[in-house]
Amino acid sequence: MKSDIEIAQAATIWPIEKVAKAAGFTSDEVIPYGKNTAKIVLDEKLHDQENGKLVLVTSINPTPAGEGKSTVAVGLADALNLANHKTVLALREPSLGPVMGMKGGATGGGMSQVLPMDDINLHFTGDFHALTVAQNTLMALVDNSIYQGNKLNLDPRQVLLKRVLDVNDRELRHIVVGLGGRTSGVPRESGFDITAASELMAILTLSTDLDDMQRRINRIVVGYTYDKKPVTVADLGVVGAITTLLKDAIKPNLVQTMGHTPTLIHGGPFANIAQGTNSVQATKLAMKMGDYAVTEAGFGADLGGEKFLDVKTPLLPKYPDAIVIVATVRALKMHGGMDKKDLNHENLVALQKGLANLGQHISSMKRYGVPVVVAINKFTSDTDAEMKMIEDYSSEQGVKTYAADVWGQGGQGATDLAAGVVEATEQPADFKPLYQPDDSIMTKLNQIVKVIYGGKEVELSPKAQKQIAGFEKLGWDKLPVIVAKTQYSLTDDAKKIGKPEDFVIHIREFVPKLGAGFLVAMAGNILTMPGLPKDPAANHIKIDSDEKITGLF
Amino acid sequence: MKSDIEIAQAATIWPIEKVAKAAGFTSDEVIPYGKNTAKIVLDEKLHDQENGKLVLVTSINPTPAGEGKSTVAVGLADALNLANHKTVLALREPSLGPVMGMKGGATGGGMSQVLPMDDINLHFTGDFHALTVAQNTLMALVDNSIYQGNKLNLDPRQVLLKRVLDVNDRELRHIVVGLGGRTSGVPRESGFDITAASELMAILTLSTDLDDMQRRINRIVVGYTYDKKPVTVADLGVVGAITTLLKDAIKPNLVQTMGHTPTLIHGGPFANIAQGTNSVQATKLAMKMGDYAVTEAGFGADLGGEKFLDVKTPLLPKYPDAIVIVATVRALKMHGGMDKKDLNHENLVALQKGLANLGQHISSMKRYGVPVVVAINKFTSDTDAEMKMIEDYSSEQGVKTYAADVWGQGGQGATDLAAGVVEATEQPADFKPLYQPDDSIMTKLNQIVKVIYGGKEVELSPKAQKQIAGFEKLGWDKLPVIVAKTQYSLTDDAKKIGKPEDFVIHIREFVPKLGAGFLVAMAGNILTMPGLPKDPAANHIKIDSDEKITGLF
Repeated sequence: MKSDIEIAQAATIWPIEKVAKAAGFTSDEVIPYGKNTAKIVLDEKLHDQENGKLVLVTSINPTPAGEGKSTVAVGLADALNLANHKTVLALREPSLGPVMGMKGGATGGGMSQVLPMDDINLHFTGDFHALTVAQNTLMALVDNSIYQGNKLNLDPRQVLLKRVLDVNDRELRHIVVGLGGRTSGVPRESGFDITAASELMAILTLSTDLDDMQRRINRIVVGYTYDKKPVTVADLGVVGAITTLLKDAIKPNLVQTMGHTPTLIHGGPFANIAQGTNSVQATKLAMKMGDYAVTEAGFGADLGGEKFLDVKTPLLPKYPDAIVIVATVRALKMHGGMDKKDLNHENLVALQKGLANLGQHISSMKRYGVPVVVAINKFTSDTDAEMKMIEDYSSEQGVKTYAADVWGQGGQGATDLAAGVVEATEQPADFKPLYQPDDSIMTKLNQIVKVIYGGKEVELSPKAQKQIAGFEKLGWDKLPVIVAKTQYSLTDDAKKIGKPEDFVIHIREFVPKLGAGFLVAMAGNILTMPGLPKDPAANHIKIDSDEKITGLF
Repeated sequence: MKSDIEIAQAATIWPIEKVAKAAGFTSDEVIPYGKNTAKIVLDEKLHDQENGKLVLVTSINPTPAGEGKSTVAVGLADALNLANHKTVLALREPSLGPVMGMKGGATGGGMSQVLPMDDINLHFTGDFHALTVAQNTLMALVDNSIYQGNKLNLDPRQVLLKRVLDVNDRELRHIVVGLGGRTSGVPRESGFDITAASELMAILTLSTDLDDMQRRINRIVVGYTYDKKPVTVADLGVVGAITTLLKDAIKPNLVQTMGHTPTLIHGGPFANIAQGTNSVQATKLAMKMGDYAVTEAGFGADLGGEKFLDVKTPLLPKYPDAIVIVATVRALKMHGGMDKKDLNHENLVALQKGLANLGQHISSMKRYGVPVVVAINKFTSDTDAEMKMIEDYSSEQGVKTYAADVWGQGGQGATDLAAGVVEATEQPADFKPLYQPDDSIMTKLNQIVKVIYGGKEVELSPKAQKQIAGFEKLGWDKLPVIVAKTQYSLTDDAKKIGKPEDFVIHIREFVPKLGAGFLVAMAGNILTMPGLPKDPAANHIKIDSDEKITGLF
């Protein structure tokens, strides 16, 4: 069997000018970055054209069996185009950290990939690098302000913001900086996060334009004074420099699927530790250029789905017209307790049990008042009885199920799914937010934990309790809450797969992100800087003198 | 008076395809990165065409008065093209650290700038970012190897390599990493360098192709085992991943001067703390495409000039045909003891004294057997008597002087200089290396200190002495030596300007860079991570909603 990179290297790729023209962009709006990638200059197009239908693709909780949410999003977009519905896809950018850590990219698979997949998974157009250097420049300016007389009275023990790298590097989680004597800074405890978890990444994805980005950057709280008052980037007076470093990163990137569907890839991976949806601008642009805009939010509906609907949707001109929940027979059987090595065997008992995970996501997504469909990403090992069980189960929840062979056949494997999605978008919808801005932080958390996760209650650490009291005094309790938690479980414990009952979500602390416009609630032992595994993917990547890469995916 | 960025923004810029075509590139060889920038795919062109003349532009020791080495290189290249000599310019890439720290870019000034200057000074084509993430990925893999059982037996106290950022950040010079308990790495002392000082940057600039880069990366010594044996990237087995991250960064970047001279900007700033010349590939390509290739090596001839001639030249198909030493009347008067605020006044006494700095560089460059000319970068405050004194002084050293008004007039202000350079390249030359590979480390250092700096002797710290003994056992003493020292003085003390006599250069330690292929000798208190000043340039940079940047330069 060919690997994804081999399939991608053998695929036909159009010059980006051709893709852009097909999408409806004028040549002035297209800035080439290589032969097959471009950035799009945003102009009044966003205001003048009507909005197409918006389709959100999300999934059950991921398992080692693989779900293929991005693969289905790609195949669905290609299928819609094949059915003569002008469709534009909007995805998130991959992070280099996991590319070098756990084998696997974020550009789909098989015949449903985005091209050029190697470039997209490596440096792409440099957005992550711009964010990295912008955040680290901001941090150097913060520490320099302390070092050069500290006129903002910043308490070095209460600097909130961290430096970032787009690398999985556990060695940098907890560090002491500023050692080496009088001329080398002020000693303090700190650490690095992965770039995708940076506040600047969240700002990039949520900003509506350069001015909005500038206003948001100014609101970033970098830390507190000795008398516990917040200090912002506005206080530092460096917003112009930081925004200048992001002037190109804010522009959406245009690429294509293997079916040549125009694809905007921009911002925002990691819905486990960050906001984790693609950019507001890219989604808006996809709706303007396409009669259908397909976008995704992962890992599962509990993380990316909820954040898309509660944090991103209020910034969009409209809410989604349909939500697709991706599952596989194999993954559902793992949620039902089967071992990965046995998944080729039919097992209706395990499947029945595992379906409860899908059920939770169906009920939580239906809660928003938007039509929901289930997409089963097909594997050859799936049996008719297994498929029928899923269809029956979903049908009981009032939801239709469509099987799609997007890996093997691309868009042609998703004809039924595409028709089903079109039908769903024509159903009446009435978006109901999960909570209101004026609800208390605990109300917001309870809604997420009870309605979305199906949990029993929220438990706050003493630190988190104290933080809430402080936030209320500052008026920060009006912000939405982003829960950072493991993607593998509905709970905050990665090992509890399936559909756990009566569980408690433990919030150990909050990280206020005033620029992004939300509070992050850190659940369980979730970390914002991943580590590398014992045998990292980097050990297997090779390149020859003709730049042919192997072992990447 | 208009700022450099205002002049640049008002200049006519050609689409990069037009520049590329004028330079002789086919469209297959050009990968666009934006409308006015491209990367060049290297092919057999490098082997088939004849080499043009090579002109190296360097300077006296820089002063706060400004010398304008890049500005003169740009103006000279434009002047050569105006005189119908097909000329290609090859410059170094700017580092973002100083752009945010000390106001001022590295793309020339006035009417002699490289365009698009704002992009070049910001992220450009992402080469620095690729180096940053490649070096940091390598370090994460090193630390992960220690953490995951340490099968290479690496001593955490003897990890040589450091992480890097393209930020001026003194807070990261000395840090402790790996804190936070059993799951967050292994505690050890470390630090960050600025990206320009990374071994990968030196490798990028010195590699002849992707295979050569791969071989060099494999040779990088990351540290020592507990029993003091070197551990290399080859031992780690991750060369493919690191090279893959640099597959595009290794390609030279094409831009243009304000006179539309094709300009290859690629790699290697910071000759004070690194190798500091532009890439071997860019210089080779400039010689292939131009009848004249103009390149530069700064800060002064003692740093960039020496490194170009002793480390880079052996990798080129030919040595330089002429060397241009840039000076200004104002800078020479500062070297003669004048205060910056008085420089508008004629002062022949100070000038006479300061000329000794120029004299040292003339004699050191003449030593290599290549014709030398002096270029005076003109200011309106220069008097006829001052100019005549410089001409007479240089003439006594057997060198001609040409005044050039490149800031005010671009290439048209450098007609005489261009003619003089052409004449110089037609003189007989016989390149004489400063030392032989088999010379001892001390012989090499003595040659650099006595012949190039005009110093008395080299003093080694006890650590450096011990290191030499170790290097000799490993056979590393056959490598060239790169001295890292202040650019402001011929000595290792930034305050000793002019032409100090009888001085000692203190080497506190060596850093072996086996991949780059040289030993770095750290002189005086030179640091490989700069800091930000009290009022960083970042405080003054603004951007409006139309992306118009002010305060950058």
